[in-house]
Amino acid sequence: MQTRNITCVLSVFLSYATLTTAQQQPITGYSSSETAAQLQLETRFDKLLSAAEIGDHIKNYSAYPHHIGSARGKAVAEDIAAKFKSYGWDASIVTYKVLFPTPKTRVLELSGPTPYKAVLKEPALKEDGTSAQDGQLPTYNAWSADGNVNGELVFVNYGLPEDYEWLERQGIDVKGRIVIAKYGHSWRGIKPKVAQEHGAIGCIIYSDPADDGYTQGDVYPKGAYKNEYGVQRGSVMDMVVYPGDPLTPGTGATESASRLDRTQAKNLIKIPVLPISYHDAQPLLKSLEGPVAPAGWRGTLPITYHIGPGVGKVHLELSFDWKLVPAYNVIAKLKGAKYPDQWVIRGNHHDAWVNGASDPISGMAAELEEAKAIGQLVKEGYQPARTLVYCAWDGEEPGLLGSTEWVEDHAQELQQKVVAYINSDGNGRGFLYAGGSHALEPLMAGIAQAVTDPQTKVSIYERKKAADATKAGNAKAKKELLQQQQLTMSALGAGSDYSSFLQHLGIPSLNIGFGGEDEGGDYHSIFDSWDHYRRFGDPEFAYGVALAQTTGRAALRLADAPVLPFNFSNLQKTIAGYVKELDALVTTMRENTTIENELIRSRQYDLAADPQDKIKGPAPKAEVPYLDFSPLQNALVILDSAAHHANVKAAGAGDKAAINQALYQAEQQLLVAGGLPRRDWFKHTIYAPGFYTGYGVKTIPGVREAIEQRNWKEAQEQIAIVAGAINKLANYLEKI
Amino acid sequence: MQTRNITCVLSVFLSYATLTTAQQQPITGYSSSETAAQLQLETRFDKLLSAAEIGDHIKNYSAYPHHIGSARGKAVAEDIAAKFKSYGWDASIVTYKVLFPTPKTRVLELSGPTPYKAVLKEPALKEDGTSAQDGQLPTYNAWSADGNVNGELVFVNYGLPEDYEWLERQGIDVKGRIVIAKYGHSWRGIKPKVAQEHGAIGCIIYSDPADDGYTQGDVYPKGAYKNEYGVQRGSVMDMVVYPGDPLTPGTGATESASRLDRTQAKNLIKIPVLPISYHDAQPLLKSLEGPVAPAGWRGTLPITYHIGPGVGKVHLELSFDWKLVPAYNVIAKLKGAKYPDQWVIRGNHHDAWVNGASDPISGMAAELEEAKAIGQLVKEGYQPARTLVYCAWDGEEPGLLGSTEWVEDHAQELQQKVVAYINSDGNGRGFLYAGGSHALEPLMAGIAQAVTDPQTKVSIYERKKAADATKAGNAKAKKELLQQQQLTMSALGAGSDYSSFLQHLGIPSLNIGFGGEDEGGDYHSIFDSWDHYRRFGDPEFAYGVALAQTTGRAALRLADAPVLPFNFSNLQKTIAGYVKELDALVTTMRENTTIENELIRSRQYDLAADPQDKIKGPAPKAEVPYLDFSPLQNALVILDSAAHHANVKAAGAGDKAAINQALYQAEQQLLVAGGLPRRDWFKHTIYAPGFYTGYGVKTIPGVREAIEQRNWKEAQEQIAIVAGAINKLANYLEKI
Repeated sequence: MQTRNITCVLSVFLSYATLTTAQQQPITGYSSSETAAQLQLETRFDKLLSAAEIGDHIKNYSAYPHHIGSARGKAVAEDIAAKFKSYGWDASIVTYKVLFPTPKTRVLELSGPTPYKAVLKEPALKEDGTSAQDGQLPTYNAWSADGNVNGELVFVNYGLPEDYEWLERQGIDVKGRIVIAKYGHSWRGIKPKVAQEHGAIGCIIYSDPADDGYTQGDVYPKGAYKNEYGVQRGSVMDMVVYPGDPLTPGTGATESASRLDRTQAKNLIKIPVLPISYHDAQPLLKSLEGPVAPAGWRGTLPITYHIGPGVGKVHLELSFDWKLVPAYNVIAKLKGAKYPDQWVIRGNHHDAWVNGASDPISGMAAELEEAKAIGQLVKEGYQPARTLVYCAWDGEEPGLLGSTEWVEDHAQELQQKVVAYINSDGNGRGFLYAGGSHALEPLMAGIAQAVTDPQTKVSIYERKKAADATKAGNAKAKKELLQQQQLTMSALGAGSDYSSFLQHLGIPSLNIGFGGEDEGGDYHSIFDSWDHYRRFGDPEFAYGVALAQTTGRAALRLADAPVLPFNFSNLQKTIAGYVKELDALVTTMRENTTIENELIRSRQYDLAADPQDKIKGPAPKAEVPYLDFSPLQNALVILDSAAHHANVKAAGAGDKAAINQALYQAEQQLLVAGGLPRRDWFKHTIYAPGFYTGYGVKTIPGVREAIEQRNWKEAQEQIAIVAGAINKLANYLEKI
Repeated sequence: MQTRNITCVLSVFLSYATLTTAQQQPITGYSSSETAAQLQLETRFDKLLSAAEIGDHIKNYSAYPHHIGSARGKAVAEDIAAKFKSYGWDASIVTYKVLFPTPKTRVLELSGPTPYKAVLKEPALKEDGTSAQDGQLPTYNAWSADGNVNGELVFVNYGLPEDYEWLERQGIDVKGRIVIAKYGHSWRGIKPKVAQEHGAIGCIIYSDPADDGYTQGDVYPKGAYKNEYGVQRGSVMDMVVYPGDPLTPGTGATESASRLDRTQAKNLIKIPVLPISYHDAQPLLKSLEGPVAPAGWRGTLPITYHIGPGVGKVHLELSFDWKLVPAYNVIAKLKGAKYPDQWVIRGNHHDAWVNGASDPISGMAAELEEAKAIGQLVKEGYQPARTLVYCAWDGEEPGLLGSTEWVEDHAQELQQKVVAYINSDGNGRGFLYAGGSHALEPLMAGIAQAVTDPQTKVSIYERKKAADATKAGNAKAKKELLQQQQLTMSALGAGSDYSSFLQHLGIPSLNIGFGGEDEGGDYHSIFDSWDHYRRFGDPEFAYGVALAQTTGRAALRLADAPVLPFNFSNLQKTIAGYVKELDALVTTMRENTTIENELIRSRQYDLAADPQDKIKGPAPKAEVPYLDFSPLQNALVILDSAAHHANVKAAGAGDKAAINQALYQAEQQLLVAGGLPRRDWFKHTIYAPGFYTGYGVKTIPGVREAIEQRNWKEAQEQIAIVAGAINKLANYLEKI
């Protein structure tokens, strides 16, 4: 086997060598001559993209509040469908019926020596033309439980598991109490989940000015950052268990679908949760007594941050209208001339929490602009080889509702037909970010070198590399980044509509956007508005064009590639990197555990503590055993040679239709039927959102999270399961 | 030579082995039998120390403001002298005439759209019994120039050289402007010095609440931290050039001394400087426009920190009464019975900025308590072998005035007679800190194991080790600290009265105190008061007793040791560590310079920058050459064997008086007549305050600062000079 592979590698090398002598570096999956034609197409595509039109889309679709279930939300979907049709696409609206709670009662009060009643309202600003509109959803967290609770308040930092470990050492229990946590450092839904696990009866989440308020920059409307009344709305569904309609896990929420009772839904929190502004948070935090919060917990309100509780008690009363609402997904198709049953899907959501100029309209506008340009190319005679499916999802904000229900509803067909799913969401001025399935890394790398950054006129890859290299923490990292020749992609966690495609069905996915020079505090507030976006988001809509150029290229190259640009050597290398990380993680945990236990047993923490503070030292932990990573390492050896084999077969002669289908379905081999421990909806063995981080990705999640949770038995079991999946993929690729 | 040393080491080892079989670990410099007697003496000494009496001293001496030049300051000196006499010591007041400016005019105003006139006054608090007194020095920085300036304001972070590098990249020049800097991260005098170097016409220094205000804890009087009106007074003399009376560098400021004209004094700043509260700083900072300050520059005032300038202008007007005042040093002696001309000096200052309960009285009180106990022992028949000299210095606060003038006045005698100088200053609850001449490390290590921590009842060494080990940044550092068997001492920079003894004369010095659980914002404010100290400093005065036990043991062991406890192997090891640091520093600078230059030349900074910010990329720097450290490395090899030789000689037979004198004078071999580059008062080649850090020590300063300043030629020259000094010490020790 080894010998054959060496030959293959040689022949691949020779063919590459031949290609590079041509004038133009060939596009992955295209021959030299095919490359020239494709590049010509892309040049024509670029010329059809208009920044002004993207700006118009953003202005129009953010003109009114348009959340799921609202009349304006429906109108936006209908308008988008009409747009697609006008561009020559076959567009329709596919409707699901999903649960979506909206507030009926919202009360937050502090009693005691300094009583306070929370405002819970963002003010209209004369500088913001849409801020005074009717139809805004009030400030709330969707999927909070109904509840009317009274209790003492405890400050829990960002509300992560380690924060509760520190509280325990202080002897402070949140049981029967209400917690107040800062936004940030985890997906917001993790905060009430961990609070609930620790016995809290309510959870308040606020935006500290240190994180996106005055400490970061001038506040709105003077600057882009959160003013004292700004509130981040958002879902607190436990999406890491499963996203989508809570009542129909794993199946499409059609009119006739069988539904769970709401109490049975495993991704719903049981305690009331409310997001508030720093104006409302300050009196609550100021009322707290008890120990001063550790340095890392303190924000920049002009107070001393105490942990609590205080003398005053908090009354939190929330009730919701738990109704089924229609989710209007717009699905627009352009049939492939050669492989109509191979679909390239592109999507962005259209629903917003309020006006949503940035989130989601800035991304949606780019997608529409791509559709317009492609439609025009078709009118001029272009025919995509594969079918293009452009989608505008509803109900992403409350929990990826629209996309998840559509994907669950068409799971089998999608696994059969979908080449890849290309996602975008909010977009802004700055640097490329690109995450996704690593077999698509060469495709993405090629595109990143082909698209020009609007501000600096170098490629978007060069600009991103410059940002990474100059920000790297040390000389070694800077050097490595500087020497990098190609884009490397990040892995995908959750937080947008690719989740069901990638993590439930194993469909190769990409998530693409720009940002980093569009920072602000408008996220999920009424101030994510046209006026905010045109000043601070992407004032010239140039990054809207850059996004359309990037995602449009991905769609076109995937639609037309004679050989689909999947390279499993990239995936193999990436997974091998993850395995090394896991090995290093266990080693570090072992070393740390040993020394910490020594410190604990020799009373160092007791002796170091201030006796006045009455802090308990940390408890010793079981020593970390050695894990057997060899099943993963051996599987990677086989995958390495199998990936080479697949590359050679793909480059060679043979039935391209069949080979292509085999390539795009390959990632499905990495799914396991039983899913991840305690969350069987998530079936991908390599990529998942973190159980305790939310948006943040956990790679090789079964193994990594078992290690992090010190569940060594499960970690070893999961090593076997993941190795099995990798072996399955390797065997599959060997058979191509 | 090598063979002889092996024999010597063996015999030393054998004698140690014999000693350790005895019941009690011998004290360094004492035989087993001598150890028993000394420990008995120390037990008697401990019993004579009274926490209550220390509390009384603190209350009495902090009862009124008592800065240098004040009537109350004189009364305090006289009262201390009387106390020494009552304890049986031969005490007198030695007076010098020193320059000491006090404010006549202090005006700080902001004009423009939001005018503001600064309060410049700390309020009386009913919870603080001395806060309403007459005689307080107003809030000011001593040695500020007279000045009346008007200009735009620029925020310069902590006012360090690297902060100005960042400003330069932003294209912001402070020339002709007034700067506002935060207290902290350097000695305060560095801030106006660097501002002046960059052309600023005035300097305002304020205490940000992030550093010692509400962000750190509840503010006074509720808690220990700085309230909105609290101001840190302090000297801005350029003490790293020379401390003491600016008019008499290098000579005692006696009545008849020849004096410089004030304009000739090289350690005086030329621009007006004023310290202010965060109440006064907020309107000034809020008025600034221009770029938002980088993340690390921002404090926790409820504003967006901009760099400036703003529309408003600042008017800063300061004038001072530049008068000569008497500095009253109290010198108390107890004549040695055996070696009257070998002196062990102990000192602490008595002058305060205002009431100074913590700084300096908490340390002075411990010293007085030691003197009382030793006096009592003498009454009971004890006779110190060497002469004890207990000092209470005046004018430490404005610039180590009293101690420096006395030391300069008696330089020759002191170099002849002084065995060691033992310093303390403010003291509080918490952990031991001990710095000094590393030949005294074994002495200090033994004492740290002999004194019991009042709160935990383990040794003060064990407690300090626990604090260090638990706070260490990584497993490796934690492990090393846990395995440590003996105290290691830090090196001394500046900031208290040891400076002239150690750095000007090469007299072995120690600086000892406790703290870390007495944090607050009272430093150099009117709130460094009895009421603050009794609540937050050391409420039971138990650490006053612990300090007296520690410094008292150092004095007694040095006074009575048959063989003086100097071990130059410790010094050799310490210097070898510094040389390794310097080597690593050059390597790191070389690697960083290379990669930064590559990043700059390949335009990475330009590409990464936000074009809207118009930031200049950093300028490339000359590549870092390889330095020849071999002169230092070779000198250390010789010092290693010379130190062994001296240890063996000291342990063997011979004229102890002569050997002891040779030992205590050895450190003078490390002085160089010409002093450090650009500051010839500082003559010690191993320890100095940093030219751009102030209090912070720079070890092997000639070499280290040349490297830091990228002056490679000077670095190589200084390597030769320092190696010469080490060789001189080695030759000297070989001859013992």
